[in-house]
Amino acid sequence: MTAVAGDRDGLIVLDHGAGGGMSRELVVDLIATGLGEVYVGEWQDSTLLAVEPGTIALTTDSFVVDPPFFGGGDIGKLAVTGTVNDLAVCGARPLYLTLAMIIEEGFPLADLATIVASVRACAEEAGVRIAAGDTKVVRKGEADRIFLNTAGIGVLDRPARPDSRAIVPGDQLIVTGYLGDHSIHLLSLRAGLGFESRVPSDCAVLSGVIGELLDAFGPDVHAMRDITRGGLGTVLNEFAADCGYGLHIDGGALPVRPETAMAADMLGVDVLYLANEGNLCLAVAPRAAAGVVDLLRRHRYTAQARVVGTVVTGGGVTGGGVLMDLPGGGRRDVELLYGAQLPRLC
Amino acid sequence: MTAVAGDRDGLIVLDHGAGGGMSRELVVDLIATGLGEVYVGEWQDSTLLAVEPGTIALTTDSFVVDPPFFGGGDIGKLAVTGTVNDLAVCGARPLYLTLAMIIEEGFPLADLATIVASVRACAEEAGVRIAAGDTKVVRKGEADRIFLNTAGIGVLDRPARPDSRAIVPGDQLIVTGYLGDHSIHLLSLRAGLGFESRVPSDCAVLSGVIGELLDAFGPDVHAMRDITRGGLGTVLNEFAADCGYGLHIDGGALPVRPETAMAADMLGVDVLYLANEGNLCLAVAPRAAAGVVDLLRRHRYTAQARVVGTVVTGGGVTGGGVLMDLPGGGRRDVELLYGAQLPRLC
Repeated sequence: MTAVAGDRDGLIVLDHGAGGGMSRELVVDLIATGLGEVYVGEWQDSTLLAVEPGTIALTTDSFVVDPPFFGGGDIGKLAVTGTVNDLAVCGARPLYLTLAMIIEEGFPLADLATIVASVRACAEEAGVRIAAGDTKVVRKGEADRIFLNTAGIGVLDRPARPDSRAIVPGDQLIVTGYLGDHSIHLLSLRAGLGFESRVPSDCAVLSGVIGELLDAFGPDVHAMRDITRGGLGTVLNEFAADCGYGLHIDGGALPVRPETAMAADMLGVDVLYLANEGNLCLAVAPRAAAGVVDLLRRHRYTAQARVVGTVVTGGGVTGGGVLMDLPGGGRRDVELLYGAQLPRLC
Repeated sequence: MTAVAGDRDGLIVLDHGAGGGMSRELVVDLIATGLGEVYVGEWQDSTLLAVEPGTIALTTDSFVVDPPFFGGGDIGKLAVTGTVNDLAVCGARPLYLTLAMIIEEGFPLADLATIVASVRACAEEAGVRIAAGDTKVVRKGEADRIFLNTAGIGVLDRPARPDSRAIVPGDQLIVTGYLGDHSIHLLSLRAGLGFESRVPSDCAVLSGVIGELLDAFGPDVHAMRDITRGGLGTVLNEFAADCGYGLHIDGGALPVRPETAMAADMLGVDVLYLANEGNLCLAVAPRAAAGVVDLLRRHRYTAQARVVGTVVTGGGVTGGGVLMDLPGGGRRDVELLYGAQLPRLC
């Protein structure tokens, strides 16, 4: 619980966003204090940071997940993992995040403190610092509870970095975790389907295992993406479009929980397009594939790592396209989805 | 107008945020194309940027202004100026912004294109590039039209930089524009008071004039803030708290439009705490004050620059406090406001 004043029920009021003493109290006593040594922001308009010469990676994401608390995480954890993972898959070492919040009037201060604690724990795990922040409060009904935004800065301090334009025929395609866990958990939670207790969100900080992987296999890791909004199907199509070769997927090799397959059937959604928040897709040189899978399997967040396909020229697969062998026989084109009505999963 | 598909009325639909082809179309064909050469993001998880060795400045702000279009600007202009100005007042040269949008289902695509065009024009004026972006769509009623977030990176490439801890007694306090223009414009617009046509928002890119000022007067500019949420009263209290000396303000010297004074009276708000979006408060060494005012007055955005007070020890002013002589005689303490019900001005 927090000692910051809200209304008599401990809820956020508009004055928390007005830039005066109540704003300062919320930001200093609840947010900055809650973040502890993870917060390195200055109380000026910008925070000054020393960076080594060279190349930095920059990314941003807003988070509007509904509901903001779920099994395996909350919007605070998601806001750190999402941005840290986006930096890490590009080969960058995540260093600093910004943290901006849009809070609906009436949001419980205690829930805000919980979210801040999640941000802190997750930032500590990832070894990043929160270097700047912003807090806005909007009237009741003008936002749904709480939205977060993080922007992230990382440094590129390895000689090689994954780049999907470097994918070549023969590369092995690897997936590291069960497909769709984050989506199925949230969809089940929202619809009360009962799967949410058996399929938690896979939301996880992947920068640690990615760092080890790149240190061990650097130039052989040709491409890496985290599977988020749009699912594996979208990542595969991006890989194919970027390199111009065909991707041939073994549908029977894909890691899918039985509960996820059942829930997806009930919901009428395709597992290939469901979002994860702690799952990677990689394209690696054939000589490194076994070693990469072995390293990934020794980490808890990537223990389901396996080869699920190959980069090809010909063999019935169009260049820039994705073809999947179905477990029961037959093949299917994995196309870029045009739209999908699964909002607010992240 | 834009050729991107929406619903039959040209409105944003949930599929624009689902991460598939419709998302890509919105992001590539409307947003990135609309930003033109200002957009330097890569279609990867992060964008890689070369930075010179040394110190960078980092900041972030969310923008929830209501309404998103107003006289003198819109939420897109505000999102660039706000972050660029925050970098510039710290002595940094703004280089890169991220741009994240949370859009309510049903928002007109044409309005989004207008906002993107504002971002572009404003980024061009400030000489910054948009290096990473994110777009989320939430259901009708889950957000009020559109919220933006920008995070900004600048480089510190000048030997001296303003720092409010460097303020010393004798420093002259300067304000560069009419107080409260942004607040009064928006409050009048929302309440239909009729002042909105005579008091436009002062939203402006100040990095150009700030750069010139620092090049000319570098170490004599002891402190600089842009006057935003919380108004001049908040900036003065921050200056006083940071340096520990008293601030003695000449209330009669403050630049206030007659319309603003009238509107503030009608609305029952205090001009000292109203927000600007293109107004600076500086503390400068006495020997530089006349030259600083002269330089500022030659620029259209800072043409109202004038000395409004002095940093003091004693003379009835408490260290860390702010005292103002009233035009009609008498004095008043300018205190840190605890809360103020003026939400969603930025």
